[in-house]
Amino acid sequence: MFIKSTFFEDYQLNDKRVTLGRTITETDFVVHAGHTGDFFPHHMDAEWCKTQPFKQRIAHGTMIFSIGIGLTASEINPEAFSRGYDKMRFVKPVHIGDTIHSEITITEKGDHKRPEMGTVTEHVEIINQKGEVVLVCDHLLLVNRKGEQ
Amino acid sequence: MFIKSTFFEDYQLNDKRVTLGRTITETDFVVHAGHTGDFFPHHMDAEWCKTQPFKQRIAHGTMIFSIGIGLTASEINPEAFSRGYDKMRFVKPVHIGDTIHSEITITEKGDHKRPEMGTVTEHVEIINQKGEVVLVCDHLLLVNRKGEQ
Amino acid sequence: MFIKSTFFEDYQLNDKRVTLGRTITETDFVVHAGHTGDFFPHHMDAEWCKTQPFKQRIAHGTMIFSIGIGLTASEINPEAFSRGYDKMRFVKPVHIGDTIHSEITITEKGDHKRPEMGTVTEHVEIINQKGEVVLVCDHLLLVNRKGEQ
Amino acid sequence: MFIKSTFFEDYQLNDKRVTLGRTITETDFVVHAGHTGDFFPHHMDAEWCKTQPFKQRIAHGTMIFSIGIGLTASEINPEAFSRGYDKMRFVKPVHIGDTIHSEITITEKGDHKRPEMGTVTEHVEIINQKGEVVLVCDHLLLVNRKGEQ
Amino acid sequence: MFIKSTFFEDYQLNDKRVTLGRTITETDFVVHAGHTGDFFPHHMDAEWCKTQPFKQRIAHGTMIFSIGIGLTASEINPEAFSRGYDKMRFVKPVHIGDTIHSEITITEKGDHKRPEMGTVTEHVEIINQKGEVVLVCDHLLLVNRKGEQ
Amino acid sequence: MFIKSTFFEDYQLNDKRVTLGRTITETDFVVHAGHTGDFFPHHMDAEWCKTQPFKQRIAHGTMIFSIGIGLTASEINPEAFSRGYDKMRFVKPVHIGDTIHSEITITEKGDHKRPEMGTVTEHVEIINQKGEVVLVCDHLLLVNRKGEQ
Repeated sequence: MFIKSTFFEDYQLNDKRVTLGRTITETDFVVHAGHTGDFFPHHMDAEWCKTQPFKQRIAHGTMIFSIGIGLTASEINPEAFSRGYDKMRFVKPVHIGDTIHSEITITEKGDHKRPEMGTVTEHVEIINQKGEVVLVCDHLLLVNRKGEQ
Repeated sequence: MFIKSTFFEDYQLNDKRVTLGRTITETDFVVHAGHTGDFFPHHMDAEWCKTQPFKQRIAHGTMIFSIGIGLTASEINPEAFSRGYDKMRFVKPVHIGDTIHSEITITEKGDHKRPEMGTVTEHVEIINQKGEVVLVCDHLLLVNRKGEQ
Repeated sequence: MFIKSTFFEDYQLNDKRVTLGRTITETDFVVHAGHTGDFFPHHMDAEWCKTQPFKQRIAHGTMIFSIGIGLTASEINPEAFSRGYDKMRFVKPVHIGDTIHSEITITEKGDHKRPEMGTVTEHVEIINQKGEVVLVCDHLLLVNRKGEQ
Repeated sequence: MFIKSTFFEDYQLNDKRVTLGRTITETDFVVHAGHTGDFFPHHMDAEWCKTQPFKQRIAHGTMIFSIGIGLTASEINPEAFSRGYDKMRFVKPVHIGDTIHSEITITEKGDHKRPEMGTVTEHVEIINQKGEVVLVCDHLLLVNRKGEQ
Repeated sequence: MFIKSTFFEDYQLNDKRVTLGRTITETDFVVHAGHTGDFFPHHMDAEWCKTQPFKQRIAHGTMIFSIGIGLTASEINPEAFSRGYDKMRFVKPVHIGDTIHSEITITEKGDHKRPEMGTVTEHVEIINQKGEVVLVCDHLLLVNRKGEQ
Repeated sequence: MFIKSTFFEDYQLNDKRVTLGRTITETDFVVHAGHTGDFFPHHMDAEWCKTQPFKQRIAHGTMIFSIGIGLTASEINPEAFSRGYDKMRFVKPVHIGDTIHSEITITEKGDHKRPEMGTVTEHVEIINQKGEVVLVCDHLLLVNRKGEQ
């Protein structure tokens, strides 16, 4: 984790970075339920899950999003501001013992009404140990331009 | 927390529900950092924050999203499936000691290619103790139709 | 979780409610030990447990009580006050991987020295995935009477 | 924490032991809510509490019980078995920042249908930093007799 | 846990005490990563570990040290002050499911420039369920002398 | 967090790196006590601490060590193996609200009996918001030599 300025001009379309992986444990399920207050049986009741089509506990969508984004948190860019996320989709369930990592691609750059900034879109794919995408989203950034300097 | 079937036909446009509130504590900041691995100084270093425009630690966006959505988890609807979220925006920062609640409004209903289902959009506003919206998003549901039965 | 007034007159003898279930995980054992400071080997030392008649780690009684009661926390009744618990008994051990739920029955109603209130006893049974009662207790409530209004 | 055999004959009526103290923190409130799933606003919503007679967040009864009993967990007696608790009463609220300790007195000894054992009652008082009792209960033990040996 | 004065003169060379055991769980791995911010794949990525010589996740060295020392925390000696540790060595890896305990031997006593105190060295061995030493260190204490009194 | 090979020849004496900072919270105290089982009143009982020379709760030494080392965990070097730590000293107490960071300096390089490796010593200083060193230690590494290749 370190601080490094990356300006609007430095972001290159199609540039991609890949994070390390992390195994999603039963502990993560329990911590996330306790952190958010969502104790739905889909996540917490192994017996009930056996009676459902998915057969086993499935991770909270908010957890896979939070951990998948957390995996990308290695470089602090003081020139960029997170505006939010678009098009978050839960593509596949994640189960206890799955290992996920994130792949981030710069997919869009645009102007902003404030001329000293530009918009950058990072497309995030969270991928399991079988290579299947489990969650996608677009991270919207507002980034300072280097300008003429 | 209980299970109750709500079908596509039961969702009424503009229906709104309001959750109870929850105070966001320093503990939540530490738990979320530890849960996601995001120890950025914006969330974790009170001294550094004093030197920044925002002056104090600010909550992880993923935490406010996860807890704000968690607050809505009171009624399990076996007819509905969460597809994801759109238009999540971090409108205002949340600080240690702020109290948030969520307000959920049915804002859209639509057809789906699978005729036995329809789409429902819940607009979620997460609101602090001053009545300010801090995060918004649209929750996309796929819901079984009651049909003719 | 929501707020709803239920007065003394509204409690009906023999009324029963059943909670959703929750699987007790190794994580819960570790969290409870860390929360309470009780690291007795019965709960924490799998090797030592193998040498004992019960063969495997057994849950803290205080944990099964706390989680079993927590499962009942879905409806906030501003007319009722918890006075305490009677006759808590550890009927059977709970092991890692067991799934518990709670069943609550109104078993007694009585007068109180303050005439605007009455006493209500909820008998709580915490039950595992085999249908075996693992813990019982009586929850003692003091509840406002509706009165003549 | 250590193992030491104490037989029925060794328990002396009116013997008393006093534990060390522990400050109940906001962290404990958040951990207990997350551990049990009880996010009632009495414990979690500082703003709502300001509008109530008690003005500030109050600890879960199950937490004060669990931590107060946890404080007593220093000596493992392989001759004693916990049967449960009687007469647990929530005498006074505990707030964030209060410091509690426990005092345990042997108040009853009796015969049991199994002649090789006897019953012992430990009266537990959990006491705050002002010397006020906040929770009481009776711990019921079944203890091996030394017998003639 | 209790308070008992032990003076420099009371420490006897070669005296040894042995703690109870504790099973190191996957939960401990996740908690330690979240507590310290060290999410290295050696501890957190089961899939990556399969490709490495050690084949499975290995515990953080700082965790085995912290838990192994924590196991010794049963008796508070107000006459002793911890100066630090020497010669900490990670002798063998600890994996999920291993059970460790600590053995502490008084190996050195010496004078200190402050004549009312002496130095005491406790050699700590942390040992797994197979009897293998996994971590060693020397704990350096400064202890009040009883003096002539 | 990323993987990058750094060989023995690449380590330069006196090279220094400085980590980001982290505020040590009351939550960290509670988490560390629960993680290690060390609930000594020095860390956990605010009332008792008021009666002691240090007046307020002091952090566990093992926590400052674990978090201070955790702060250094940003770059994974597959060529280096941690052998342990020497000369760990608790120089100053850390209190709730202090902010620490770590500074790591290469202070020694040496040969090893295995000629394809060398020894490297990283001197670690953990420093608070006033610039005071609170803990020091020497981290001992065994590092692959690049060799002739």
